[in-house]
Amino acid sequence: MIELLQNTFYSDIPITQAMKLQVLKYDGMSLTLRAPLPPNRNDKGTAFGGSLYSTAVLAGWGLIYLMTKERNLQADIMIHESHSRFIAPVTSDITATCGFDSEEQIEKALKLFHRRGLARFQLNTRINAGMSDAMTFEGSYAISR
Amino acid sequence: MIELLQNTFYSDIPITQAMKLQVLKYDGMSLTLRAPLPPNRNDKGTAFGGSLYSTAVLAGWGLIYLMTKERNLQADIMIHESHSRFIAPVTSDITATCGFDSEEQIEKALKLFHRRGLARFQLNTRINAGMSDAMTFEGSYAISR
Repeated sequence: MIELLQNTFYSDIPITQAMKLQVLKYDGMSLTLRAPLPPNRNDKGTAFGGSLYSTAVLAGWGLIYLMTKERNLQADIMIHESHSRFIAPVTSDITATCGFDSEEQIEKALKLFHRRGLARFQLNTRINAGMSDAMTFEGSYAISR
Repeated sequence: MIELLQNTFYSDIPITQAMKLQVLKYDGMSLTLRAPLPPNRNDKGTAFGGSLYSTAVLAGWGLIYLMTKERNLQADIMIHESHSRFIAPVTSDITATCGFDSEEQIEKALKLFHRRGLARFQLNTRINAGMSDAMTFEGSYAISR
């Protein structure tokens, strides 16, 4: 699953190659991505906000993608709306983790998807700097047939 | 000014090279950036949300950057918080325009900056698809000495 997502990122979203984005961990309920600092740095030598955002939005996108693949579903996944807070600079590699709230969240959305061909996922992604939050991302994703 | 910003992007935020980001237009009150579709595409062949975001956030960043340079101010510019709505897919090059509300917005913020070494800019960036909005971005930026 990690390899599938890694290949999908590099072939379908080519800017992820320039970001050197890596799929780090997946356990069915949460996904962690990493992007090294050097290609993603800004004028201050810390992580560029756009790269933080891309890593965060793809953590949610990838989590939904793998969930649909595990269930043999064919679905388009799109970010619909997002709210981002940049709390502290990221001075090392970017690590973004996104998780489903519960199995129930998945089942409820999939019921709608099967009935109407469309559903929403509200997901949060966190990027840490040491022990505390560096960036929080709330994303509303749509999946459609 | 356009050349200064273009060089700053490519040297200080290297991912903008991979995005092939271009500074298109600047008139002192608004800034337009363009990023071609091919390096910024997603799995659906439309613009990747992360690239839309990066172009939008840099339109605001670049606008403040040029405003400070024109006034010989030394300032760090940081995105602090943002809200993004993805309304329609972008099927061609990404064009993002960000503008100050008024001269008064600039003067008010600079007064605070001179007094406290810190100020905020609330800026909106628009990305169009044909005649209508494809993405709207509201960003809160901080400038500091």
